[in-house]
Amino acid sequence: MGNSFGTLFRITTWGESHGAGVGVVIDGCPPNLPITAEEIQVELDRRRPGQSSIVTPRKEADSLEILSGLYEGRTTGTPISILVRNTDQRPSAYDEMLEKYRPSHADYTYQAKFGRRDPRGGGRSSARETVGRVAAGAIAKKILSLGAAVEVRAYVAQVQDIAMAPLAGFPALADVEANAVRCPDPVAAQRMIERIKEVRSQGDSVGGVVECRVRGLPAGLGVPVFDRLEADLAKAMLSLPASKGFEVGSGFAGTLLKGSEHNDPFVIREGRVRTASNRSGGVQGGISNGEELFFRTAFKPTATILRPQKTVDIHGAETELAARGRHDPCVLPRAVPIIEAMTALVLLDHWMRDSAQNRAFEFSLS
Amino acid sequence: MGNSFGTLFRITTWGESHGAGVGVVIDGCPPNLPITAEEIQVELDRRRPGQSSIVTPRKEADSLEILSGLYEGRTTGTPISILVRNTDQRPSAYDEMLEKYRPSHADYTYQAKFGRRDPRGGGRSSARETVGRVAAGAIAKKILSLGAAVEVRAYVAQVQDIAMAPLAGFPALADVEANAVRCPDPVAAQRMIERIKEVRSQGDSVGGVVECRVRGLPAGLGVPVFDRLEADLAKAMLSLPASKGFEVGSGFAGTLLKGSEHNDPFVIREGRVRTASNRSGGVQGGISNGEELFFRTAFKPTATILRPQKTVDIHGAETELAARGRHDPCVLPRAVPIIEAMTALVLLDHWMRDSAQNRAFEFSLS
Amino acid sequence: MGNSFGTLFRITTWGESHGAGVGVVIDGCPPNLPITAEEIQVELDRRRPGQSSIVTPRKEADSLEILSGLYEGRTTGTPISILVRNTDQRPSAYDEMLEKYRPSHADYTYQAKFGRRDPRGGGRSSARETVGRVAAGAIAKKILSLGAAVEVRAYVAQVQDIAMAPLAGFPALADVEANAVRCPDPVAAQRMIERIKEVRSQGDSVGGVVECRVRGLPAGLGVPVFDRLEADLAKAMLSLPASKGFEVGSGFAGTLLKGSEHNDPFVIREGRVRTASNRSGGVQGGISNGEELFFRTAFKPTATILRPQKTVDIHGAETELAARGRHDPCVLPRAVPIIEAMTALVLLDHWMRDSAQNRAFEFSLS
Amino acid sequence: MGNSFGTLFRITTWGESHGAGVGVVIDGCPPNLPITAEEIQVELDRRRPGQSSIVTPRKEADSLEILSGLYEGRTTGTPISILVRNTDQRPSAYDEMLEKYRPSHADYTYQAKFGRRDPRGGGRSSARETVGRVAAGAIAKKILSLGAAVEVRAYVAQVQDIAMAPLAGFPALADVEANAVRCPDPVAAQRMIERIKEVRSQGDSVGGVVECRVRGLPAGLGVPVFDRLEADLAKAMLSLPASKGFEVGSGFAGTLLKGSEHNDPFVIREGRVRTASNRSGGVQGGISNGEELFFRTAFKPTATILRPQKTVDIHGAETELAARGRHDPCVLPRAVPIIEAMTALVLLDHWMRDSAQNRAFEFSLS
Repeated sequence: MGNSFGTLFRITTWGESHGAGVGVVIDGCPPNLPITAEEIQVELDRRRPGQSSIVTPRKEADSLEILSGLYEGRTTGTPISILVRNTDQRPSAYDEMLEKYRPSHADYTYQAKFGRRDPRGGGRSSARETVGRVAAGAIAKKILSLGAAVEVRAYVAQVQDIAMAPLAGFPALADVEANAVRCPDPVAAQRMIERIKEVRSQGDSVGGVVECRVRGLPAGLGVPVFDRLEADLAKAMLSLPASKGFEVGSGFAGTLLKGSEHNDPFVIREGRVRTASNRSGGVQGGISNGEELFFRTAFKPTATILRPQKTVDIHGAETELAARGRHDPCVLPRAVPIIEAMTALVLLDHWMRDSAQNRAFEFSLS
Repeated sequence: MGNSFGTLFRITTWGESHGAGVGVVIDGCPPNLPITAEEIQVELDRRRPGQSSIVTPRKEADSLEILSGLYEGRTTGTPISILVRNTDQRPSAYDEMLEKYRPSHADYTYQAKFGRRDPRGGGRSSARETVGRVAAGAIAKKILSLGAAVEVRAYVAQVQDIAMAPLAGFPALADVEANAVRCPDPVAAQRMIERIKEVRSQGDSVGGVVECRVRGLPAGLGVPVFDRLEADLAKAMLSLPASKGFEVGSGFAGTLLKGSEHNDPFVIREGRVRTASNRSGGVQGGISNGEELFFRTAFKPTATILRPQKTVDIHGAETELAARGRHDPCVLPRAVPIIEAMTALVLLDHWMRDSAQNRAFEFSLS
Repeated sequence: MGNSFGTLFRITTWGESHGAGVGVVIDGCPPNLPITAEEIQVELDRRRPGQSSIVTPRKEADSLEILSGLYEGRTTGTPISILVRNTDQRPSAYDEMLEKYRPSHADYTYQAKFGRRDPRGGGRSSARETVGRVAAGAIAKKILSLGAAVEVRAYVAQVQDIAMAPLAGFPALADVEANAVRCPDPVAAQRMIERIKEVRSQGDSVGGVVECRVRGLPAGLGVPVFDRLEADLAKAMLSLPASKGFEVGSGFAGTLLKGSEHNDPFVIREGRVRTASNRSGGVQGGISNGEELFFRTAFKPTATILRPQKTVDIHGAETELAARGRHDPCVLPRAVPIIEAMTALVLLDHWMRDSAQNRAFEFSLS
Repeated sequence: MGNSFGTLFRITTWGESHGAGVGVVIDGCPPNLPITAEEIQVELDRRRPGQSSIVTPRKEADSLEILSGLYEGRTTGTPISILVRNTDQRPSAYDEMLEKYRPSHADYTYQAKFGRRDPRGGGRSSARETVGRVAAGAIAKKILSLGAAVEVRAYVAQVQDIAMAPLAGFPALADVEANAVRCPDPVAAQRMIERIKEVRSQGDSVGGVVECRVRGLPAGLGVPVFDRLEADLAKAMLSLPASKGFEVGSGFAGTLLKGSEHNDPFVIREGRVRTASNRSGGVQGGISNGEELFFRTAFKPTATILRPQKTVDIHGAETELAARGRHDPCVLPRAVPIIEAMTALVLLDHWMRDSAQNRAFEFSLS
């Protein structure tokens, strides 16, 4: 349980870090969408290891194969199964992990839960699991873009204590992709990259904050009570490896304001109901209000570090562990496409659910 | 859609602020649990209006009736239906809301989504909807306590910029309930109460942060990938009216540390695997590690304020609105039992899901 | 678990035969539907006891109250909660059942499953549970009729060995309601009524077959593989108390034909693709083909009979039991509105799911 | 949507007849189960084409690969992904199907629903889709057998009008597998085989009835109301290609009896509560009563026949179609392992759901 996400656009991911491969099955994709493996590959390439000097040098091409659900280049409405074979497996690099629990990893908790675990590279708890999310998200992003002109953009806003300058507007994809850390502020980006290289040279790691903005959403997306848009986004973000926090709109900082300072006044702009400010972050009562959706996700520093750490082994003895091998000193650059994928999955699923209840329920009850 | 929560212990809430009543149906409650309406009423009384000088003076007894699922004082395993009639209805107080969208409320988004709405007191978007959550949570808390010795404790940690002192240990319920603001630090509590009264006298409002701790959880609760324990908790918290953020363990502050500072070393204590620190917040890879579960939820200042605000009406004209009547200047004290309820619902549902896969998660109600 | 039905139009029923009441919560009803308690009451009256000389004389007005989800006579898109109080309770009539398991009832299996049970009138296993289904089905029927011109008609086709003559066309509601047994063939109906009175006078009971037809369905409703239209209908029918079989189209009798005799040739009629015969029963590959939907449900003879029967008591001793009181000698007449309700629930839910994936997904991907 | 089955032991199948392959992802498999590809292959071999003289001669080895979820020969509790590559693809055999709708197939309804379809061999509507079900069912059967001593046995009971003699007891697997038609009555089996060969020589096809029995179930499995055991079994059976009917226990024939003849008296046998007869089919009120579970599924004659049939083409013109190539003249022999698989999936899922509520449903895999 727990390996599926979504109600109507529903994905199920599978696979371990050093097993035969990883993948995803997408159930509920609308028919007639033109999509190619190449388009999906573009997103996998943004996520894959070895893409720049500040991510893990592990060499994994992450070439995908679409096994079902397409016919003559278009979706048929049947499940889309996507497979990525694992290629760069060095299980011997993990010999020590067979016996020792890595601090702040899931080794101990998997053992406690399942009574056994695949220790090779963290098995299912490896961030390699997110390959399937990104592949499915690429399809969701295309549907949102093509069918609804909705655009999702994530970027690194903070690395440790280095924060970017405030954004002038919705950042261009090119500005995000212009540097290895995926921060659209080039000055901050340079400092972030230096910091990441510095901690890597110390055998250490850093975390930070990724922001995500969505433009083009109409007012009315989402549902009241338990499946509020921000609730489903919070779940999506906290389901990511290494994430520790989520905030929408004004978030934690908003707790310092008074109501009279915090409320977003309604105004009429270009004939539409708009808000003068956006401390709500584009969502009110769980439903989009037509403003830019805005939320932030906190990531802890990578748990895997090369410095020796205290831990215990599976026999209950205290010991030391120092990771060897190839690791990300900072997960944030590679988290950017994953956050975009999860956001697109949440939005598309709500879009489809909403279409069942109002707009798309194609008859008038009046 | 969106009015149900949980997989195996599944609740469905219904009802509007000024309709006939509010309630909940609980499907999946284990049989043989002794429970009375009085025990559930205790939790509803912690949530109800009029309980102290710093919450809304609205008079609503919130007396519950259990309509099904019990026989001779014990649950039978069939659905438990709970009804609370609405009594203090003054719909005329909402006349203005028929025409004007309240800023940072859900009036406009409900209208955009559904094409119509119940404007009396916010209808379904009213915090009155949480009555059903608290009633169901009371049952979940009893099961966790009786069957598994798990204890859930929420409290107000911050009101605007007033933060409590660090806690010495797991706070006693009596210390939380000792003051009207539900903060176990009596000095900070006094300042918080004064602040709330001050902003109320200004016709304004404040927000803050509620913390929640859980003790008694074994290692191994939760599942990998999408339904991680912290992901489900994040969703539960962001489903609450007025919540804007969630963080588990070190949260956003943890992004400032390096991995070598942030990781929780494993140690052996009293023959068990433990961590020397708890920046993980009791959860690793989505699964509990046997330490105290710890998370924080941010609430914005109450959207309803008595000062005049700019807004627009349903005809698209710009106008002004000033709330009348009885409102909470700060939602946090009443949010405490709601957060405990939602936390208990998440934990019990995972407990039951795990018990299907792992015999360690068993509990006896006899 | 198991008390909810549907994915997007989702109902949860609750209540026991001799508890405070029975009811249903409907989540996912589209907004803006005009509906009154009186319209729903019409369907409850078709299901209620005491309505004719061949059903149980138990006196239960089954007056419903709508507790939420409506505003000014129309649905708001929020959950609709419906309550029917129990009034005619004679628990003493069930004293013997406290100790003895009624043959072919659920007394023993509930005890085995839950370890305890509400013995008053069968508790949750009583057919009284279907009140909530019928109330929800009344709303579903209205949406299908108003929004999609889909009409659902069930009727009694066979009582014990007495079968109706073949139907000339889609039967009129008035013809079904023209007699107490709800069989549109008046000659057969008369014989059925006599048979039912005869077995009742013997303290015995009979079963039979209810047929259901749906007209107005477009081609394309339903989904491949697990949630085929006929699969969901089969589940709905086998979820009814006393049902033992389901068949769609040619059903069991179709197994006697060869493929060349059984296949439905496609033809063009009035410019549309039609089939020359309808042994498919209106569904091919789990998806409606635009022909009349046709299926049959078998009901066993009522388990409650007044004649003495061998059984065992809760202490494990063999004994005898003879029911007292008021019972249906044949469940079929009252099953007719329940089958219509369940059919409408299945069709509307699929309609809404389909609207999310194609027709109603309101943008073009071409 | 519609490609997943089960709640806690949840499978998702994917793949088309002539695409890259077919497969299944299983989420919720308990950890620590020893299982090999070879054990699963045994069940796939019972389902595969070319296995005998009365099934389609299509040559498809159906060799499976387990891509995830196992470590050192045992399940880890993470998703199990299984892939079977398609090998014997002759898309040219389906050229005519590009233009013409095959009678009583899903060509037209898929087109109506999705607006497009994969015409090669029926695409997703092909019975090849059941490969994934059988693979998942093999695992479910092993868990039931190993952990709970539950045994599932299906067999062909009737081909057209040829019915087997009544069974003396629970049939041995060897007796079912002793002949190509999978009927444990060798005399009837011989006649069935001759009939199948005869209709095949005529370019025609036949249907029939498969029975399924389950022994070893304790009393108490299943849930009341919508997810009754027989309701979930009915859905599982009606989800199979070519199935048209389902009956449990006395089924349609039971409608001819009176209650006094039909009820199953309770008796005490070997210290346990048992029933003297089993017209209930092992289930009462949706819950197993500890007797043998017994149900029957009707299959229509194979829709694909070699004789010319009237139909229409995609341009709306009436035309003729005669299938070419390799087809099953009778689907029943290959349906036997599929029915066992679906039955095991239903039972195991209920077992796991019950284990969350009732400690009696536990099993050890160690």
